[in-house]
Amino acid sequence: MSVSKPWELYYWPDIQGRGEFIRLALEEAGIDYVDVARSHKDGTSSLVAALEAENIERPPFAAPFLRAADLLIGQTANILMFVGSRTALAPAEEAGRLWAHQLQLTIADFVQEIHDTHHPIGGGLYYEDQKKEARRRAADFLENRAPKYLGYFQQVLKRNKDGSEYLIGPSLTYPDLSLFQIVAGLRYAFPRAMTREAKRHPLVWKLHDRVASRPRVAAYLASDRRIAFNQEGIFRHYRELDTQSR
Amino acid sequence: MSVSKPWELYYWPDIQGRGEFIRLALEEAGIDYVDVARSHKDGTSSLVAALEAENIERPPFAAPFLRAADLLIGQTANILMFVGSRTALAPAEEAGRLWAHQLQLTIADFVQEIHDTHHPIGGGLYYEDQKKEARRRAADFLENRAPKYLGYFQQVLKRNKDGSEYLIGPSLTYPDLSLFQIVAGLRYAFPRAMTREAKRHPLVWKLHDRVASRPRVAAYLASDRRIAFNQEGIFRHYRELDTQSR
Repeated sequence: MSVSKPWELYYWPDIQGRGEFIRLALEEAGIDYVDVARSHKDGTSSLVAALEAENIERPPFAAPFLRAADLLIGQTANILMFVGSRTALAPAEEAGRLWAHQLQLTIADFVQEIHDTHHPIGGGLYYEDQKKEARRRAADFLENRAPKYLGYFQQVLKRNKDGSEYLIGPSLTYPDLSLFQIVAGLRYAFPRAMTREAKRHPLVWKLHDRVASRPRVAAYLASDRRIAFNQEGIFRHYRELDTQSR
Repeated sequence: MSVSKPWELYYWPDIQGRGEFIRLALEEAGIDYVDVARSHKDGTSSLVAALEAENIERPPFAAPFLRAADLLIGQTANILMFVGSRTALAPAEEAGRLWAHQLQLTIADFVQEIHDTHHPIGGGLYYEDQKKEARRRAADFLENRAPKYLGYFQQVLKRNKDGSEYLIGPSLTYPDLSLFQIVAGLRYAFPRAMTREAKRHPLVWKLHDRVASRPRVAAYLASDRRIAFNQEGIFRHYRELDTQSR
């Protein structure tokens, strides 16, 4: 009998970041995995080494990436699609899988726009060096973009023929976990603006609570494996960006 | 014998935009398709109607989307993955498919950053209202981000064990078509800066030429189905953004 090696998640150890979408899926699925940079003293070095290695035929462009048996998989949405194919976190049939991935890619776009509220000029520059631009971008985001995305997911939940408890069908799939993370992050980053959005998109907020109370997710959130939100990740709380224009 | 209905691509009729990545794949694969908004007098109306319809259970967030038999598929990379699964444009085995999609998602990130050079504050605002910010963002993009992405694809080509003619294996897959489009677009938008990049990433530029000379792609590019680059799409030429900082 062969004993398979645990999967290895490579991501930065001090932030939730894009890695958190993978962590949530691995935790909910009950997968045996190692969060490499958080579990080994030299874990971050091996992450960086993998990004810089010149002998990897199919190198990842950036973290997160996942090692699962012989596969080295990069890009958050791609990793989630793979995890979905090995667990109950994605529908079994093709149409459902494509739909799950479509929702995940829309979430990825949303995540990028959230990130850019505090880094509209360049990810390599300090926030302090793009603060003025960030105020303009965040105002536009809160006025136009966040309501558009949240309204979209509210509609998807509403139109789900199997009920509005989850995005797809009658049970949880990986985009539900990611949408939970989006709501949690937006509430941290923009508490004032999100008080308003919560009222306008109640099904999205209910989904957040439903996911948070699932036993494995709840256990994970209460553990020290869950990194707290902080000012280095995608979701950052800058009081001056949390405006209420409407 | 059942005759299947042509696939329908829904995208804006006056720009290449994200739809162009799909058009290139459908053309190269020789698929029978209708570019709805370009083929029917009221095509754009039916595109908008589909985006606004309240009776679609699984609505797209934005164009492009593709109707193929009973499937309605959104998100560019997701559509390409589907096209790859029905044609020779993707590897047959799982590892190759995941790798192709991983590259495509990295291209999608690159496309977003290219777009944001002229719209760093908000997609709904005019360029003229974010011109100053655009100069800063474009300078950072040309200094740091474009070389990083192009260098990555140069490495992927170089490390391909089957030779450096294509990104994956010995023959063309859908990310090759998208990388062609990226190079074509960057040369249009940033002719000065790209003169430098061409020298630093020769395999990427050779790939562009190789794709452009494939019979079906060449026929498409010469046809009136190919929309010219213009100042409404992702790739825009603003002389003031095309700097050469190094």
